[in-house]
Amino acid sequence: MTDDDAARRAETFAALHHQDRPLLLPNAWDHASAALLHAHGFPAVGTTSLGVAAAAGLPDGTRATREETLRLAGALGALPCLLSVDAEDGFSDDPGEVGTYAAELRARGAVGINLEDGLGPVDRHVAKIRAVRAAAPGLFVNARTDTYWLGDGEGARERVLAYRDAGADGVFVPGLTDLGVIAGLVRALEGCPLNVLYAPGGPPPDRLAEVGVRRVSLGSLLYRRALGAALDAVAAVREGRDAGEGTVPSYGEVQKLAA
Amino acid sequence: MTDDDAARRAETFAALHHQDRPLLLPNAWDHASAALLHAHGFPAVGTTSLGVAAAAGLPDGTRATREETLRLAGALGALPCLLSVDAEDGFSDDPGEVGTYAAELRARGAVGINLEDGLGPVDRHVAKIRAVRAAAPGLFVNARTDTYWLGDGEGARERVLAYRDAGADGVFVPGLTDLGVIAGLVRALEGCPLNVLYAPGGPPPDRLAEVGVRRVSLGSLLYRRALGAALDAVAAVREGRDAGEGTVPSYGEVQKLAA
Repeated sequence: MTDDDAARRAETFAALHHQDRPLLLPNAWDHASAALLHAHGFPAVGTTSLGVAAAAGLPDGTRATREETLRLAGALGALPCLLSVDAEDGFSDDPGEVGTYAAELRARGAVGINLEDGLGPVDRHVAKIRAVRAAAPGLFVNARTDTYWLGDGEGARERVLAYRDAGADGVFVPGLTDLGVIAGLVRALEGCPLNVLYAPGGPPPDRLAEVGVRRVSLGSLLYRRALGAALDAVAAVREGRDAGEGTVPSYGEVQKLAA
Repeated sequence: MTDDDAARRAETFAALHHQDRPLLLPNAWDHASAALLHAHGFPAVGTTSLGVAAAAGLPDGTRATREETLRLAGALGALPCLLSVDAEDGFSDDPGEVGTYAAELRARGAVGINLEDGLGPVDRHVAKIRAVRAAAPGLFVNARTDTYWLGDGEGARERVLAYRDAGADGVFVPGLTDLGVIAGLVRALEGCPLNVLYAPGGPPPDRLAEVGVRRVSLGSLLYRRALGAALDAVAAVREGRDAGEGTVPSYGEVQKLAA
């Protein structure tokens, strides 16, 4: 891919965050899941750090999957979809190292990165965002705060504004489902796109759209449902029921997804 | 693991092929799927070559996943489940190389291997089976013939008997669902366990048990259903329906599967 192509893809991805309807970003865990989601009409695909970690037998959120995440980005970066990579906290406390890592992801074809703060110091996350913008210009930086994921929401507004001011292209607040709070954050962000995590039983994308959400991620949900569906299918076989329920791509369809 | 432990595990796996009910062998494609299947009561877990290939963006059945298969065996061999590895045709025409590969799988903790003939020369497959028995004693050799998978069934009986006589511990005939033909093969095999592939809409395990089948594999079904379930879930979200249908392990449950 030429630099021009890469820049165009990054612009296309950024533009998807400024539409009336939020960008629905499904998260893949391997090559086939990404290729299949793209083939079913999703222009952009994210990765799920839990899926990447669990697939490799590693714990999520512990900086264990630095290499595995890079490997997956290499495999998915060649796909025609726009790829955004969940990179935990950048796998380092050192902003320079996080910037270098982001540049490596971009070199593999990624157009976006998710960087979580893990409720660590705001200044450190701000420095990481700045380092990524400097080292990987054009990469869409989705700055995540874990204020609702790991905490009670305290400090969410201050954090997302600090990340926006540091140059984040969008901010991500997983765990937040209260439409009133979401609407307040959207207003405070003044145009910087807000990303929330879809929660089963929570507001559907249409309601999130009404309060101004610009991106809805599925996080680890698809990977977890994929694992659950395998359990459901084998349980059906074991109990003598038919295991053909739900969508089951054929052997040939899956084989065709290979690069 | 000590050599004694490894030998005991291999014996346990072999014994599962000589029970009244056939061994139901679900096929995993990554660490979490194997760990989860084992946690749900399956003492033995196979791998699916399609799943391993597709996950890595490689085509199945083309000897493209030699290293990937070894990598997965290394990750799964540490699990407490009994692991049988789908090794396509051993990734080589050379029996010596296939034997060496089988020994590498065994060293990583596998207790069984599937070796397919791809409808190639019977003598070559016989030589591979002998080489694996010599290089990896104790490894359960499941010799697969593709007479029904790739062909019309011609020569199935001659092939499975030749593989049995070469020392295969069991034979695998995917694509075969006719209970009368299955019963005939079981009789001809005189105690060598017959493995068939579960087919949605085909005979359930209970019917297969009645005609003497000793092992029922799920092949790529679980992986394909997993991919399909991810599509179903994201389609539900996109359409404003709830995506919580079916089994969905929690974040914590998946995280706990890590080694």
